[in-house]
Amino acid sequence: MKTEKECEATVASMNFIADHIKKVASELDKGSVTDLVTGIMGSKKIFLMGAGRSGLASRAFAMRLMHMGFNVYVVGETTTPAVQQDDLVIAVSGSGETPSIANLGGIAKKIGSKLATITSNKDSTLGRISDIVVIVPGRPKEDVIYEDYHERRMIGYPQLAPLGTIFEISALVFLDAVISEMMVRTGASEAELKKRHTVFE
Amino acid sequence: MKTEKECEATVASMNFIADHIKKVASELDKGSVTDLVTGIMGSKKIFLMGAGRSGLASRAFAMRLMHMGFNVYVVGETTTPAVQQDDLVIAVSGSGETPSIANLGGIAKKIGSKLATITSNKDSTLGRISDIVVIVPGRPKEDVIYEDYHERRMIGYPQLAPLGTIFEISALVFLDAVISEMMVRTGASEAELKKRHTVFE
Amino acid sequence: MKTEKECEATVASMNFIADHIKKVASELDKGSVTDLVTGIMGSKKIFLMGAGRSGLASRAFAMRLMHMGFNVYVVGETTTPAVQQDDLVIAVSGSGETPSIANLGGIAKKIGSKLATITSNKDSTLGRISDIVVIVPGRPKEDVIYEDYHERRMIGYPQLAPLGTIFEISALVFLDAVISEMMVRTGASEAELKKRHTVFE
Amino acid sequence: MKTEKECEATVASMNFIADHIKKVASELDKGSVTDLVTGIMGSKKIFLMGAGRSGLASRAFAMRLMHMGFNVYVVGETTTPAVQQDDLVIAVSGSGETPSIANLGGIAKKIGSKLATITSNKDSTLGRISDIVVIVPGRPKEDVIYEDYHERRMIGYPQLAPLGTIFEISALVFLDAVISEMMVRTGASEAELKKRHTVFE
Repeated sequence: MKTEKECEATVASMNFIADHIKKVASELDKGSVTDLVTGIMGSKKIFLMGAGRSGLASRAFAMRLMHMGFNVYVVGETTTPAVQQDDLVIAVSGSGETPSIANLGGIAKKIGSKLATITSNKDSTLGRISDIVVIVPGRPKEDVIYEDYHERRMIGYPQLAPLGTIFEISALVFLDAVISEMMVRTGASEAELKKRHTVFE
Repeated sequence: MKTEKECEATVASMNFIADHIKKVASELDKGSVTDLVTGIMGSKKIFLMGAGRSGLASRAFAMRLMHMGFNVYVVGETTTPAVQQDDLVIAVSGSGETPSIANLGGIAKKIGSKLATITSNKDSTLGRISDIVVIVPGRPKEDVIYEDYHERRMIGYPQLAPLGTIFEISALVFLDAVISEMMVRTGASEAELKKRHTVFE
Repeated sequence: MKTEKECEATVASMNFIADHIKKVASELDKGSVTDLVTGIMGSKKIFLMGAGRSGLASRAFAMRLMHMGFNVYVVGETTTPAVQQDDLVIAVSGSGETPSIANLGGIAKKIGSKLATITSNKDSTLGRISDIVVIVPGRPKEDVIYEDYHERRMIGYPQLAPLGTIFEISALVFLDAVISEMMVRTGASEAELKKRHTVFE
Repeated sequence: MKTEKECEATVASMNFIADHIKKVASELDKGSVTDLVTGIMGSKKIFLMGAGRSGLASRAFAMRLMHMGFNVYVVGETTTPAVQQDDLVIAVSGSGETPSIANLGGIAKKIGSKLATITSNKDSTLGRISDIVVIVPGRPKEDVIYEDYHERRMIGYPQLAPLGTIFEISALVFLDAVISEMMVRTGASEAELKKRHTVFE
């Protein structure tokens, strides 16, 4: 079967995701990005949290923040200390309604720490209580048929990037771009990051 | 400072990563992708492994394979059973030389299970011993100056995507595209995936 | 200083913990233990959950249940599927009030799955909603001075086993004893367990 | 069936484990315990590592060291930085031969950091390269029949505590006793530990 040999769905999915990343980049609210960068650089400790694949994106960011030299922790890992007033808590949640993360967000606010949320949904539980909200748009509302796909059998949107895929990858790429932003602003070199990278792997 | 208010490094980094994803998509070796898909669909159990951020990419893929209904495990997690002959082990390693992952790859081959590796480096320890190798190109050899970047102060490549960033994100997007490929091939619907998604989060 | 060279606090702490384990063993409610064993052996899938060090105890148990051949998962790990009606969810919480665990316990009951809790506190949020409650007593109410300790400077209770230590270790030992109980009941041999033990470590 | 209703295997297993803990306490080499305590208190950063259930014991210890205020990390977790010369790496391995842990131990020595190992086997790969070795005896060599067990059907040793159970629990209890030792030596109060305990759970 020609379609399968060509792996057209694989190629279409990668292009669909890349196009979405470009769209997110072009629509970024620069003010909230700057608030996030300033918040990170001005906090004593930084805590990342997220559930499922959003949690994996938040961990990838946490690892790079450690490489940058920040005091950074992942909520739920073994040696993560108590959150305190001068700390920044960053939540990653597409819907802004993930129950466990929204609950922890509420606790963070009660403690008096700063809360930032990366989400597709500004008007959500997390969006409403956060000091900083960066919008990363997720899945399109309507069922998109991928246009570059030249086969007769079209691939609809959900199969190109099911469930939260589009948000999770876009959030990860955005957060990696924030690392780039901070490297440029602080003049940090790749060599400095490498020095902090574990060799225990 | 204009540059910082504009967050140009953030936007440039996202575009740089998206462009790389498109490049990877266009250069994919369809034969090895098909071997990977066939290997996954024909194995009794599937094991994912990777260190650091490559490990996070491998987990994101493992989670979706579980949503697809496969018997899938992450090496090192609590209830991951012993690998056996009819199983497929998938390694994610940009260099193909991550010591712990290369060691486990060797053990996998001794056990007689099938080994697949997602890597930038075919001629590596993991590349040489694997039954299936999918090449996902990583960082460019030379220092690239990002061309779309219209500021006088140019951003060099390593600051746009330091260390293994380019490989890690490309591998993640490729693996998500493999999910898309399998959904199209098997006719799996998003609703079926959602049914297996935990509500414990 | 004699006391320190003798490491008397170390020895006193180990004896204090061992004595508590024996006390827990002698006060076990056999009916609830049998309900737990029966619940495990009669469920399609088993899910373990707990926060902090109670979470580590629940993972140690989950790993052994996997060695016994059960379909067992740790809540929050990568490939843990959705909980369903015929499943058993086991919570480990000394107070029975850990917010995230109590919330998940409520969701488990709404789904219609069976909920078992290992706790010191029967009359707690988790204790009240659980189908099976096994009481593992935790720290004594009063400040105990360790009696076998023959130094002039006495060690008070909290320093012998601070915070939840006594509950966490007692719960772990109890759960390992449940493995022993199931090996005897089913005639499972150590060799069978070993066969399922990963060699990827 | 009387035996099962009585849960005699459960009780016998708990007593067997408690007796072993007391035996380990009575045979502790005080010199090596003091070296471990001194090593922890004199190091800039402390890293814990172990595979499987020994890894869970090492994490439980790492969490308490964090509560004590140490800069402590678990090898393999997200924000664990690079090990350096002034650091202490602590391995937990019953056999002292767990391949991944022995490899990392070798790397730790090459870096020039101090290596401590908790093991049953002094004459092992890890035992031989470590600066500090604390012996925690594991399973008895011969098949022990539990003597307090008054049923006609006796329970042999492996069923009372299969595989590495005896070592893993004894190591955990020993390490918790080291926390007790350090609280007494430094005068740290439980309240100070509690302040560092996360409320995000």
